[in-house]
Amino acid sequence: MNSGKTMTTGCHFSHKHILGIEHLSAEHIDHILQTAESFKEISGRSIKKVPTLRGRTIVNLFFEPSTRTRLSFEIAAKRMSADTFNISASTSSATKGETLIDTARNISAMHPDIIIIRHSCSGTPEMLTRYVRASVINAGDGTHEHPSQGLLDMMTVREHKGRLDGLKVTIIGDILHSRVAHSDIIGFTRMGSRVFVYGPATLIPVGLEKLGAVVCGSLEEAVRDADVVMTLRIQKERQSDPLLPTFREYAQNYGVTREVMALARNDALVMHPGPINRGVELMPDVADSSQSVILDQATNGVAVRMALLYLVMGNT
Amino acid sequence: MNSGKTMTTGCHFSHKHILGIEHLSAEHIDHILQTAESFKEISGRSIKKVPTLRGRTIVNLFFEPSTRTRLSFEIAAKRMSADTFNISASTSSATKGETLIDTARNISAMHPDIIIIRHSCSGTPEMLTRYVRASVINAGDGTHEHPSQGLLDMMTVREHKGRLDGLKVTIIGDILHSRVAHSDIIGFTRMGSRVFVYGPATLIPVGLEKLGAVVCGSLEEAVRDADVVMTLRIQKERQSDPLLPTFREYAQNYGVTREVMALARNDALVMHPGPINRGVELMPDVADSSQSVILDQATNGVAVRMALLYLVMGNT
Amino acid sequence: MNSGKTMTTGCHFSHKHILGIEHLSAEHIDHILQTAESFKEISGRSIKKVPTLRGRTIVNLFFEPSTRTRLSFEIAAKRMSADTFNISASTSSATKGETLIDTARNISAMHPDIIIIRHSCSGTPEMLTRYVRASVINAGDGTHEHPSQGLLDMMTVREHKGRLDGLKVTIIGDILHSRVAHSDIIGFTRMGSRVFVYGPATLIPVGLEKLGAVVCGSLEEAVRDADVVMTLRIQKERQSDPLLPTFREYAQNYGVTREVMALARNDALVMHPGPINRGVELMPDVADSSQSVILDQATNGVAVRMALLYLVMGNT
Repeated sequence: MNSGKTMTTGCHFSHKHILGIEHLSAEHIDHILQTAESFKEISGRSIKKVPTLRGRTIVNLFFEPSTRTRLSFEIAAKRMSADTFNISASTSSATKGETLIDTARNISAMHPDIIIIRHSCSGTPEMLTRYVRASVINAGDGTHEHPSQGLLDMMTVREHKGRLDGLKVTIIGDILHSRVAHSDIIGFTRMGSRVFVYGPATLIPVGLEKLGAVVCGSLEEAVRDADVVMTLRIQKERQSDPLLPTFREYAQNYGVTREVMALARNDALVMHPGPINRGVELMPDVADSSQSVILDQATNGVAVRMALLYLVMGNT
Repeated sequence: MNSGKTMTTGCHFSHKHILGIEHLSAEHIDHILQTAESFKEISGRSIKKVPTLRGRTIVNLFFEPSTRTRLSFEIAAKRMSADTFNISASTSSATKGETLIDTARNISAMHPDIIIIRHSCSGTPEMLTRYVRASVINAGDGTHEHPSQGLLDMMTVREHKGRLDGLKVTIIGDILHSRVAHSDIIGFTRMGSRVFVYGPATLIPVGLEKLGAVVCGSLEEAVRDADVVMTLRIQKERQSDPLLPTFREYAQNYGVTREVMALARNDALVMHPGPINRGVELMPDVADSSQSVILDQATNGVAVRMALLYLVMGNT
Repeated sequence: MNSGKTMTTGCHFSHKHILGIEHLSAEHIDHILQTAESFKEISGRSIKKVPTLRGRTIVNLFFEPSTRTRLSFEIAAKRMSADTFNISASTSSATKGETLIDTARNISAMHPDIIIIRHSCSGTPEMLTRYVRASVINAGDGTHEHPSQGLLDMMTVREHKGRLDGLKVTIIGDILHSRVAHSDIIGFTRMGSRVFVYGPATLIPVGLEKLGAVVCGSLEEAVRDADVVMTLRIQKERQSDPLLPTFREYAQNYGVTREVMALARNDALVMHPGPINRGVELMPDVADSSQSVILDQATNGVAVRMALLYLVMGNT
């Protein structure tokens, strides 16, 4: 391994699985981000390949459709020379009535080193760890967590702001159904940021304050003096109608426009986990503004995932 | 090649294609199993990779959905450093009205070394051999054969019992539609086991005795003193209603319970080709008992497939 | 790189993208074909692998179903040791309402070297070049162009005829909807062939003569003394009924039979971009005759795509 040499923390990374940011201490988050930062330059080379995970078997087990997350993990794995295998729900034995546990145990019997799983049921990745020998990485489970997204968000903010502590991070949208919001609230709070959330009242879960988030009463309160403004995708496919305003109503009341961004700090970052519904939760001119770091998020996603694959394999 | 060196038989393996166990002599089956046994340890290494098939092109051409078989072949191929390519029916030119022969000849013109095919029509892999230059491996054709499954079943039994000759191997279920049963009956019989079958009368093909199998009149007759009890999946998607009892009736009359297993030898193995309908053909406590070698079947599947890929490439 | 050494032209290949044959000079086409010819032997080796594109990231972004073109590009890429990633429309974020541009920019942020795109809208690949840093290769866009197909057709004819200039190349079928026909007309004309087209009047676009093609009034006029007879696939899925005769009518009036081929030169080549509707646009005995070079087209497709991947990466 000719990357990651520059680790300066003496942190011992002991996580075999990455199930949620909730299980990661500030020190471990910092260690992951430092590792990711050291891996980032590999993707800028013309020969984007290091032999670190050669001969490792990594299975992408996706029970929900995904382009960017699956691709990001697959790119991360191949740039470290691992062998990758994609299984998607539509082609899986799930359609033949097999239980998820049997599917997982069967895959496990083929000796994968890492299973990356996305599933619509919260808790599935954790359950899996009881049945497989491989490391399990949660690539999104129900409304629970999406830890690699939370980590790439933190990496992106730290890259631009130089720090995470003392920042005002605002998340706007459907907090209730968002595993991204959940991971971000826990992660940013743990790293010393203050997280403010705002959205339709029906889409703000009760008890969010326990995670350290401040629930705001207005868009202005949420965005004023923010260092980061993150909008969430309105997930049409994930919720029943009654909870959700129409797209037009949503854009009018919760959509982030230039005017809204004017309330934030001048150097505030615009973020979005994607895919964007342009003109609904985020206006095109804001998404494409110089404050937007949405594409940095995608770039850093590969680096964070390289770091996670590297670290769960027992390398520190 | 730093594996497979330990071959002790002087067997000359001359098969370019693997179409069915029916074409394999006892000597060749033994040679495949020995080769698989020598490959098995590769999957236990941390760097699960040997250069044996580097630069070889292997195409998975699957006209039926599959998770485990496709994954098992793909893992086997990549652990031997081959390049693999997946084609599944839903995305293939089949939807554009091209004949299978034209699809195959077209793929053949791109110089694959091995084509692994699954198709709902019996005989398709054999037909393919007349049109392509590559080696063809049958990954399941209609109700005909699934030779790599038969071989991994034999490998698993031999691993646990130390031998295949003189064993009582019992297969319970829908024998009529099962290519697995077909391959197992031929293979185990050829290796000196006695194969007993039992299932709904409408699902036992006429003339099965010609293959060497004993058709039993009761579950007790089938299972009593068995060394191996293999249940088959009730394939809801593969048969028309009239032949099939309801799941509840099936479980009651043909499902393998602890009580049924008590009739077999104390050290009898429980096997299932998967995916399992838990509570239908096999009760959960039996599937998960210490007698169950179902996950060994999955593990050995990779080793058997490595052996097949290795041997059809002309290596002995 | 131990292939492509034999380049004798001093041609400087300056194309970062391959969007259409329309952008390629005769000198550049010749350079691509020479490069492809030098790469062809790699696919005939037992170890079909050169290290040329090791560590390069190549994304297949297919918004239309494809077996052969996607497979051909993927084989080409892996034989040059690149890492490949497949994204197909059915599993992409397109289903989540993301714009194509956002999808492309997101992928671009993960640092692919080459994006190979197929899309049902003409002009999509060109549009993409404004939003991504990667090289873009058009794998078929709407009714516009399919440049790698045009190039492999030229390579195949040159291989058999020793030249392209002065040949009579006849294309029969639905010219209006065919991106293959478009690329071939431009390419063969540029290389000195005379291209004649024939088909149902409603399927011949107005103004085709401007591209240098001769629109014929009868099948006999089109085929007489032709050096090459290329039939196009009747694309049932791509056109509305009114324009199209029934398959039976089409076969009777435009289908290429032995009798039709008798009008062409004795050594005329039979070509088809596939997949073939046997008995509709092309009769089976003609498709399988000794004059048919349809499988050479598939073989040369891999070589041409290896050349394109090599050349857009800045290698000449």
